[in-house]
Amino acid sequence: MKTIDVCLTPELLHLYDVHNKIVVVVDILRATSCITTAIAHGVASIIPVASVEECKAWQQLGLLAAAERDGTMVEGFDLGNSPFSYMNPDAKGKSIAVTTTNGTQAIRKSQNAKQLIVGSFLNLSAVVNFLRNQPVDVLIVCAGWKGMFNLEDTLFAGAVADCLTAQFSVACDSTLAAVALYHAARHDMMAFLSNSSHVQRLASLEIHKDIEFCLTTDRYDIIPVLQGEKLVGM
Amino acid sequence: MKTIDVCLTPELLHLYDVHNKIVVVVDILRATSCITTAIAHGVASIIPVASVEECKAWQQLGLLAAAERDGTMVEGFDLGNSPFSYMNPDAKGKSIAVTTTNGTQAIRKSQNAKQLIVGSFLNLSAVVNFLRNQPVDVLIVCAGWKGMFNLEDTLFAGAVADCLTAQFSVACDSTLAAVALYHAARHDMMAFLSNSSHVQRLASLEIHKDIEFCLTTDRYDIIPVLQGEKLVGM
Repeated sequence: MKTIDVCLTPELLHLYDVHNKIVVVVDILRATSCITTAIAHGVASIIPVASVEECKAWQQLGLLAAAERDGTMVEGFDLGNSPFSYMNPDAKGKSIAVTTTNGTQAIRKSQNAKQLIVGSFLNLSAVVNFLRNQPVDVLIVCAGWKGMFNLEDTLFAGAVADCLTAQFSVACDSTLAAVALYHAARHDMMAFLSNSSHVQRLASLEIHKDIEFCLTTDRYDIIPVLQGEKLVGM
Repeated sequence: MKTIDVCLTPELLHLYDVHNKIVVVVDILRATSCITTAIAHGVASIIPVASVEECKAWQQLGLLAAAERDGTMVEGFDLGNSPFSYMNPDAKGKSIAVTTTNGTQAIRKSQNAKQLIVGSFLNLSAVVNFLRNQPVDVLIVCAGWKGMFNLEDTLFAGAVADCLTAQFSVACDSTLAAVALYHAARHDMMAFLSNSSHVQRLASLEIHKDIEFCLTTDRYDIIPVLQGEKLVGM
């Protein structure tokens, strides 16, 4: 039987062999929610880069670019780090270089996967329905916060694993924990997350609307997938 | 306010500064349960060592010694890795060198803490009552399994944090997750853990009695504490 695993932070990624797996990278607040939104709203591709300098270099080559560090936008870039900024009609059909504190790092670290896709609550069912029919093992990589475990990414991992129990076996305790946490949270995720470190961090930046949007389920039916160095729609 | 944090596996320990903290090392199945049992039954001290070779060296110096790898006892040593073997009256008043797959490694990695104590369900209330009155931050270090997250250690961390919410603030999501998992599991921990990787691994070794014993709460009122290179009773 195929297996589904959850890597709770990129700091634990070296314990997993990703070569033969589909990796789902998740950074609910807000990188993978932004990427999903962008592709759903017609952005041609997202180029996830590790450093602000690299992002700047893409911008100087004429691309749109967005950089976030510690939850706020780095000055001198074109887009914010709210999912709403990726709905901008001016970005339609264009490529955007993006670097974030956690999400784009997790993507870069996972790029040796057999296939790498991007997940968020916004495209939960699309991700689940895709994985269900694939004949390979799955690893969900939670972006976390600067190497630390975080709740919202783990809840998403639990939601995915919970939907796939008939098709996949669970090999590790982190998946069992993610499913149990999702069961405890699913009826009111906002309340469950209200004490979480990241929601408190973001709440202090006054972006309640972003958080609410990122916890919305199944708004989009697309999946960003890594092709070469670009994430494109599937 | 003092803080309480949970480090979900020793692989994440570099993200925390332990110098000014009391570290509670936990390896429910079975290292820290064995160590607690040993000290409670009159063993003078436990010397936690990282390698089987080092453990052998202590044995050759005349100490009792116990070595476990991958859940089974290494040949040529004096004690098993069941908590029951540490109740042996012959061990009373003696020192025992111990190496295990996860627990003793977690102790060694945490030894720069301001103070290092050993916790298990067997001495849960003793640990909680001790921590409650200390004026410093606490970090619970889960031994996990070969670097991976495990459920039973996290449940213990959740149980401790849950008892200390009045005295400590929670700084990180791993603590919130541990408490939520403990709440989901506390009424029947054995059932909750029945699918966990470690319980399945140990169940295949036919040691149900050990697991049941290790999940018993408050059997002993002592706390093993690291003094130099030895764990002694407090």
